[in-house]
Amino acid sequence: MTDTSQARVNGQRLWDALMEMATIGATDKGGCNRQALTDLDKQGRDLFVQWCKDAGCSIDVDSMGNIFARRPGRNPDLPPVLTGSHLDTQPTGGKFDGVYGVLAGLEVVRTLNDAGIETEAPLEVAVWTNEEGARFSPAMIGSGVWSGNFDQDYAYARTDKAGKTFGEELERIGYRGQTPAQARPLAAAFEVHIEQGPILEAEEKQVGVLSGVQGMYWYDLTLTGQPCHAGPSPMEGRRDPFMALHRILDRLYKLAAEFGPWARATFGDIRAEPGSRNTVPERLVLAVDLRHPDQEVLDTMDRRFREIAAEIAAETRVEAAIRDEWRSPAVAFDSRCVEAVRASVAELGYSNKEMVSGAGHDSVYISRVAPTGMIFVPCEKGLSHNEAENADPADLGAGANVLLHAMLKMANG
Amino acid sequence: MTDTSQARVNGQRLWDALMEMATIGATDKGGCNRQALTDLDKQGRDLFVQWCKDAGCSIDVDSMGNIFARRPGRNPDLPPVLTGSHLDTQPTGGKFDGVYGVLAGLEVVRTLNDAGIETEAPLEVAVWTNEEGARFSPAMIGSGVWSGNFDQDYAYARTDKAGKTFGEELERIGYRGQTPAQARPLAAAFEVHIEQGPILEAEEKQVGVLSGVQGMYWYDLTLTGQPCHAGPSPMEGRRDPFMALHRILDRLYKLAAEFGPWARATFGDIRAEPGSRNTVPERLVLAVDLRHPDQEVLDTMDRRFREIAAEIAAETRVEAAIRDEWRSPAVAFDSRCVEAVRASVAELGYSNKEMVSGAGHDSVYISRVAPTGMIFVPCEKGLSHNEAENADPADLGAGANVLLHAMLKMANG
Repeated sequence: MTDTSQARVNGQRLWDALMEMATIGATDKGGCNRQALTDLDKQGRDLFVQWCKDAGCSIDVDSMGNIFARRPGRNPDLPPVLTGSHLDTQPTGGKFDGVYGVLAGLEVVRTLNDAGIETEAPLEVAVWTNEEGARFSPAMIGSGVWSGNFDQDYAYARTDKAGKTFGEELERIGYRGQTPAQARPLAAAFEVHIEQGPILEAEEKQVGVLSGVQGMYWYDLTLTGQPCHAGPSPMEGRRDPFMALHRILDRLYKLAAEFGPWARATFGDIRAEPGSRNTVPERLVLAVDLRHPDQEVLDTMDRRFREIAAEIAAETRVEAAIRDEWRSPAVAFDSRCVEAVRASVAELGYSNKEMVSGAGHDSVYISRVAPTGMIFVPCEKGLSHNEAENADPADLGAGANVLLHAMLKMANG
Repeated sequence: MTDTSQARVNGQRLWDALMEMATIGATDKGGCNRQALTDLDKQGRDLFVQWCKDAGCSIDVDSMGNIFARRPGRNPDLPPVLTGSHLDTQPTGGKFDGVYGVLAGLEVVRTLNDAGIETEAPLEVAVWTNEEGARFSPAMIGSGVWSGNFDQDYAYARTDKAGKTFGEELERIGYRGQTPAQARPLAAAFEVHIEQGPILEAEEKQVGVLSGVQGMYWYDLTLTGQPCHAGPSPMEGRRDPFMALHRILDRLYKLAAEFGPWARATFGDIRAEPGSRNTVPERLVLAVDLRHPDQEVLDTMDRRFREIAAEIAAETRVEAAIRDEWRSPAVAFDSRCVEAVRASVAELGYSNKEMVSGAGHDSVYISRVAPTGMIFVPCEKGLSHNEAENADPADLGAGANVLLHAMLKMANG
């Protein structure tokens, strides 16, 4: 068997691929707006598929638009070792979130081709559809259907703000494949990703070895009051959703502080109905995102959130309704995959930290049907979901090298 | 000269006209959605114009779409006595706000026709365009241009949420007239309106005699933070506009309480950008409406609002920018017009209260170029800008009788 221990990715080629992909949907502020199932998403997918074909991979697209680029192994009967992430971005997203994981997978294939290294098991590089959840909620719907967490009909019926459905947009860009979107045996699945947080940078570590992912719950909180005219209605008689809102926000920020430093409370969107500036709104709808790595604590936060909303609503004579949009329990990764990452980092000599992901990733769903592990690299100031998102080419290369060797261990082991 | 003291409006006919107008844009919940310069607004205008023609009035439409229905006087050289209000509604508006003032004016004309009463000065019933400001901001733009408070070019360029301009929508519905929209001499201008507040009902008074209108300032408060991913970013490092928002709301509600019971603080609309549920927003834009009947107090509230926004923004490391959308100083009505209303109420024997309007009305602008007065009648539970808006037919008739006699006094005096 070939000695693969000296194999290293070409960091410049990986960087060049990232920068070329980033031209598709490039924003004025240096970020990327390439939302799921748009024309730009199609362009990004087409470019990736062409690169994979040029690297000798076969391509399969499933009925959720998930793309699988396969590099054959010596033994075609073995289940493949897969890596992947996503190409879609936030509306004001960056160049690295998701894209790095996909193109690091491509760079692994190119590196193995250059070095003439064959693996026992086949390798696959996957692109999962609509990871961000920015255009179609919920997030990670491509990997979610594939791993049996959502029905495909449910996914197809999801609508964007303009009322277009996931299904018709998938069809429109030509990425609704024939292969049913469902899990098949994998030897292992890895995902390398920018941290999207400040910890590795602050501690000057080059690689994060992930043991799991924070649990996260998404809600819509609807506060319904009584619309009235801004002028004549005395303040004390009002049933004003904003009076409830500010007190609920205050309590939820205090709740996150109480369960700090790992608890998170985020409000990404809000709308007022009817939304007329001289009328107290009838209704406010607030998007609430609560997270904690400890499932028990997250469930406590969930209960307290419901108590707070009910209590403040009663005090302000407003109705509060909570709709569960999505619930993702805390995840522990497969010990063999974590060990493969840990051993590769040690062999490569990178400074590193064992940690938990604060963000959701496709690997959360994949981990329910296959042995899974993740690798983080630092990103500048921890910024992500932001056009200023940035990462050090040396760190991106280090993460890809860890991915390369973790995949080799699982494919040849 | 005819004895007009026994003239009374036909309350049933007024009610029937209100109910017929309310079918245009009727909502499921019994309200009205007939926003300015929509197809429904055109239908409402057409119906009013037909009724006025049937009552022998001549019609003039000015370049802002303001409609003037004129009943001749014995002396065509005298400046007319005008009454008017608006036919446009809020998105979830009621059947009476504005419409009552327009159709009470029509009922005055019909009553004088039935009784064969001629007036010395001509009478006019006006429909002012886009009073609500719900579709095109600012409010009262028709009377505002007519009275010289806004440029017509500015009005024409205002856009609705779909990006359509006031000018193109006015043209489209066929109500851009030839007469320049500008003030001409009026003997007096009156407006009768539902109170849109709970005071008359609570004090069991049938008519409000208005001495003036609250001052009101409209703003857009923009809070700009730093977008970041909802999961990995520790709470303490965030620059989250919602963290500033809830504290600013808290302080503004306290400010309104400090200057109570007449101060008002209303937040009618809000939006988040980019508005993705797992990203801390870069920006929140909040519509702020502050009111007080005492101009000096309102200016104090204005100054304190700016201090609060700056202070909380600094503490939360968010940028706060305040844009003045509209400023309407407190108004004192013409003493002769107020006296004409007061005397009419006394002659008619209605229970009444001298008061100030908490809402803006077209009369605010008209009062800058003509002697002006206003009359209020109670509305159920004080509700307005609400589909449940309601009023007692007897009170609506009483208000129309006060209008009739106040107009007669000024037209014959």
